[in-house]
Amino acid sequence: MSITNPNRLFPLDERTRELARELHAIVEHLPIISPHGHVDPQMLRDNHPFPNPSELLIRHDHYVTRLLHATGSDLGLLLNESNPRAVWAELVNKWNVFAGTASGYWLQQEFEALFGIQDIAAMSPDSSYNLISAALGRPEMRPQALLDRFGIEVLATTDDPLSDLAPHSALSSGTGTRILPTFRADAYIDPSNPNFLSSVRALADHSGDPLDDYSGYLAALEERRDYFKRHGAVSADHGVRSPRTLALDPDTAAALYSRAVRDDLDEREKDVFGAHMLLQMAGMSSRDGLVMTVHAGVYRNHHSDTWRTHGPDTGHDIPVPTSFTENLRPLLEAYGLTPGFHLILFTVDETTLSREIAPLAGFYPSVFIGAPWWFLDAPDSAARFRASTVETAGFYRGSGFIDDTRAFLSIPARHDMARRGDAAFLARLVGEGRLSKKAAEQIVVDVVDRLPRVAFKL
Amino acid sequence: MSITNPNRLFPLDERTRELARELHAIVEHLPIISPHGHVDPQMLRDNHPFPNPSELLIRHDHYVTRLLHATGSDLGLLLNESNPRAVWAELVNKWNVFAGTASGYWLQQEFEALFGIQDIAAMSPDSSYNLISAALGRPEMRPQALLDRFGIEVLATTDDPLSDLAPHSALSSGTGTRILPTFRADAYIDPSNPNFLSSVRALADHSGDPLDDYSGYLAALEERRDYFKRHGAVSADHGVRSPRTLALDPDTAAALYSRAVRDDLDEREKDVFGAHMLLQMAGMSSRDGLVMTVHAGVYRNHHSDTWRTHGPDTGHDIPVPTSFTENLRPLLEAYGLTPGFHLILFTVDETTLSREIAPLAGFYPSVFIGAPWWFLDAPDSAARFRASTVETAGFYRGSGFIDDTRAFLSIPARHDMARRGDAAFLARLVGEGRLSKKAAEQIVVDVVDRLPRVAFKL
Amino acid sequence: MSITNPNRLFPLDERTRELARELHAIVEHLPIISPHGHVDPQMLRDNHPFPNPSELLIRHDHYVTRLLHATGSDLGLLLNESNPRAVWAELVNKWNVFAGTASGYWLQQEFEALFGIQDIAAMSPDSSYNLISAALGRPEMRPQALLDRFGIEVLATTDDPLSDLAPHSALSSGTGTRILPTFRADAYIDPSNPNFLSSVRALADHSGDPLDDYSGYLAALEERRDYFKRHGAVSADHGVRSPRTLALDPDTAAALYSRAVRDDLDEREKDVFGAHMLLQMAGMSSRDGLVMTVHAGVYRNHHSDTWRTHGPDTGHDIPVPTSFTENLRPLLEAYGLTPGFHLILFTVDETTLSREIAPLAGFYPSVFIGAPWWFLDAPDSAARFRASTVETAGFYRGSGFIDDTRAFLSIPARHDMARRGDAAFLARLVGEGRLSKKAAEQIVVDVVDRLPRVAFKL
Repeated sequence: MSITNPNRLFPLDERTRELARELHAIVEHLPIISPHGHVDPQMLRDNHPFPNPSELLIRHDHYVTRLLHATGSDLGLLLNESNPRAVWAELVNKWNVFAGTASGYWLQQEFEALFGIQDIAAMSPDSSYNLISAALGRPEMRPQALLDRFGIEVLATTDDPLSDLAPHSALSSGTGTRILPTFRADAYIDPSNPNFLSSVRALADHSGDPLDDYSGYLAALEERRDYFKRHGAVSADHGVRSPRTLALDPDTAAALYSRAVRDDLDEREKDVFGAHMLLQMAGMSSRDGLVMTVHAGVYRNHHSDTWRTHGPDTGHDIPVPTSFTENLRPLLEAYGLTPGFHLILFTVDETTLSREIAPLAGFYPSVFIGAPWWFLDAPDSAARFRASTVETAGFYRGSGFIDDTRAFLSIPARHDMARRGDAAFLARLVGEGRLSKKAAEQIVVDVVDRLPRVAFKL
Repeated sequence: MSITNPNRLFPLDERTRELARELHAIVEHLPIISPHGHVDPQMLRDNHPFPNPSELLIRHDHYVTRLLHATGSDLGLLLNESNPRAVWAELVNKWNVFAGTASGYWLQQEFEALFGIQDIAAMSPDSSYNLISAALGRPEMRPQALLDRFGIEVLATTDDPLSDLAPHSALSSGTGTRILPTFRADAYIDPSNPNFLSSVRALADHSGDPLDDYSGYLAALEERRDYFKRHGAVSADHGVRSPRTLALDPDTAAALYSRAVRDDLDEREKDVFGAHMLLQMAGMSSRDGLVMTVHAGVYRNHHSDTWRTHGPDTGHDIPVPTSFTENLRPLLEAYGLTPGFHLILFTVDETTLSREIAPLAGFYPSVFIGAPWWFLDAPDSAARFRASTVETAGFYRGSGFIDDTRAFLSIPARHDMARRGDAAFLARLVGEGRLSKKAAEQIVVDVVDRLPRVAFKL
Repeated sequence: MSITNPNRLFPLDERTRELARELHAIVEHLPIISPHGHVDPQMLRDNHPFPNPSELLIRHDHYVTRLLHATGSDLGLLLNESNPRAVWAELVNKWNVFAGTASGYWLQQEFEALFGIQDIAAMSPDSSYNLISAALGRPEMRPQALLDRFGIEVLATTDDPLSDLAPHSALSSGTGTRILPTFRADAYIDPSNPNFLSSVRALADHSGDPLDDYSGYLAALEERRDYFKRHGAVSADHGVRSPRTLALDPDTAAALYSRAVRDDLDEREKDVFGAHMLLQMAGMSSRDGLVMTVHAGVYRNHHSDTWRTHGPDTGHDIPVPTSFTENLRPLLEAYGLTPGFHLILFTVDETTLSREIAPLAGFYPSVFIGAPWWFLDAPDSAARFRASTVETAGFYRGSGFIDDTRAFLSIPARHDMARRGDAAFLARLVGEGRLSKKAAEQIVVDVVDRLPRVAFKL
């Protein structure tokens, strides 16, 4: 697991491993492009030292808190900032439960690369806590210094449509990293979202239109998208349980909307209006050029008590069976061939990869295959992802790697993992006589450096 | 395929193979813990010699009879005990159809380890029949002797709720193996079960309550669970087509029940009551502590004529698409965080592994990832199982291996196959720098010896 | 990627690769049996020189045109025969987008084996166009000469039920290849098919029965099947979105049919009648002996504008989630055990392989596992196919490889790819001690040469 092993994540076969090492070396030090993620822009802006190891590495990373919870830790303890040493001890004392997991892999890389800790379980929790705490006080561990050290050229955040994007403006000079906002309007367009009513009310307050004015609502969304664009945004993101899309005529839509803002829709009507709005967002993207990313197929806040007590993003968002082919058809009928429209699809249902996403991206110029997402952002899953998409759609219909992370410190480990995985995959294809070495050398660079720039219009 | 090959099921790469061999050696001779299966307790109790090779190795193993049937053998012949030599000849003469299958692998291990037969196809059917028959007459081939020889520490059977568990009582001393009953109430709680009416009638006769008394029905089920507990049971098993759960208010449930016992429910109502009862069983498990195992997603008795002629478990139970996330939500809302409640999920739909089961087990302390089940209990399937679950939930949220078999003689081969598979998987992770050798050495022991004890409260 | 690499598609491990090479050598030069495909019989009959490289290798191959379209090429250009040099330049200039794809692999084999071009991207498009054009003028590049050169023993075409099969009659002597028609009645039995109305009208015209005479309709279909059989057909093919089957009583079916031919069914009724007719076709197959092949799970003509402009088979047929277990149950209840009835299942939803198709073929003697189809006809997909089916159903319940191609020149490359994949898979099983080398040597021959003859009754 150690980063001192230069062959980590490479194939076991000696010659193929050698080739993977050569391919990886070509891209190892290329800048990091992170066009979608959840790092807090205010944290970057403030540039304060990170408060303590638990706040930095545990509390905000629901990959980590969820597995500690599953193995018996108290979620209230983990999510509370008042006792970071006790939280830290949970992680260190149960380090074995992370063996083989993606987050265990990332944490190990971080421990070694940033704090020089080879085996976290071999030290007492207090010792490693103290060691890391001391390091966090140093100037080179401040957020902006790490942006440089990590070699992050582009970093996108994810933002509320009514955000003034002040941190982004402030950050627009002074760091070598381009920090971009991303428009994420789920709470404004999906009546099933628990914050829908308060969101549309705030939007109407902002625009000055009556709350139940459907055309004012659409115009206000367009205005906010434009605001985001003027502040550097290149994409609009959509998290949905189902990627269903649907075209309502404007009168029907307006009537549903006016009832939606009075909380007067049943479940089916909520779904219909949400599907209609997903199609509207595609229309806006086709006009204003913001890349449309869709993260589909997750049942959010599966355990109600936990959600009531601890809020969202606390580890119980669980995937559901997903399908794109029929659900996206109205959208692709309307905009699938529109020049400049980009739609990037992310899934946590692996069955969609060979069955739907690769075939769609192999026909529609607008459709891009998103990177392995969430639970699938891990070495074996990523290998399956490549093996399930490349044979149908090749390497050039993908978005490039996307870390989609809240865990700032994990960004380099994740990108390196993706690069190693791609080098390993390409090396295998060369070894099997399916690709020339020369082609692989070009592809590994394109995948890391060119595809995200193309897909996200950077 | 021979057991004389010490490297069977290990990776092809030389160094990784060496490491797998080392890891396997650590657990090779650990006792077998078999916390769920279908061995006949009466057979163990009687301890008679096995009657003949076909009765022992073919007739009761629907893995074997189904593939012989698919390749042209007459099912009536295979399932009838009157002509065991003819049945045996079917297997020997078509041995090639089992090449590459899991059951072929197990049978080969059994032929070699127990009867010294290297190549069953190289002998005439009569020769191997005679050879095995002669061996079956020896004292060391009696069931109880094999329990010792196989090193089986724990063996769970699966039993009707109204069973008096006499064999278990009789077996409670005299063997070195702990023989446990398992409460399996499908026919008592699912109105779609062909034996529902006779089962609930028998239960009411047993309890003395009126047939249509819902609270008496629940109390009778609880009484039988308690009886099982007092006879050593640690778990209650549930085989369902869909893992749907649903909370009805008691009056609605009582009304449905009183109609169910008069065979007066339509298909939808049967499903609703069954889903309600699955939730009730979780409630009982949360109170009495019996581990709840769920085997979901199988269309039982797919071919009606075969079922009418030959009965259930005759090879035509076929998997269907399965999903747990929404179906189990009512159950997990109610009991997902209940201390001491254990829910072990088994699937024959591999898509649920990375999409649902690993994410659920990565959050809910009550949820355990069951072992590869039925058609998936095979080397490549088991490797996919690990690769689809470990990256999300690690190694410590699993139940350990479960053979779930009617084929008594296959138990050691199956457990050895699982141990080899885990050793191979861990060796690969070490080889890829994702795990230290030290961690792998601990995990291989925990997976074999500790996890089943934890998950099944042994 | 070069065919000069004798180890292409073989395992990376040295000893296993050696074994794969030995196994492949046994079958490398066996004749090609292609019992299902879409080569134009008139083209074979005419035996004219191929007009130009684009007509031969691009325009009719929607694997190729779709990916060019997805990467920005104009579909109108690609599908139009008026500017073949411009079309050719699209392929050559974007050759990198095919890296790692199945069609890229086949094209590379064809470039090398037939035209001596090692690296198409290293020459100007005009140079390779000229070189190939010149070659196409030679006698040994005529269609019938290639049938011989490719070693094609059997080649099935796919034909309209009203076809007079004149090309097949003409081809019945004079080539060493047996050219068989295949009965494909989708447009005649599925009211959702855009050509249903014109097809049933043509059928009624042919038979002389009134258009809305259901029994005449069934008799006419039976008569055409018989005509096909007398012209050498061995199978009837069915392409369906869902493999749903349903038994209507004759009166209900007749009533639906008489409304269907007046275009008076709603969507649900169309599905019901289509499901009924799929069951009828199974009945006809059970009586006349034509092997029933089912290609299920594709949403045809996903993008309406493209379909209106360019017609069907233009690259936007996209898979959908598929399930066979419940959908095929009425069919298998009726005919699953009927002696001589053969049902071969093809899927583009990989989830059905281990979950449904292998279990069905592991019980029903009539069910055969079709080869990896369409998007899944590629090296990694084919390896997953074997690993997902063999452990349950062995090697002997499969149909053997089927190329299902319109791209005549790709036939040898595809069959060789399948043979190499099987050799690689078998070599791994031998290397892992799961199969003897002797057994593997038998299986590799049976899979290539015996299984298609058995499954398709050749």
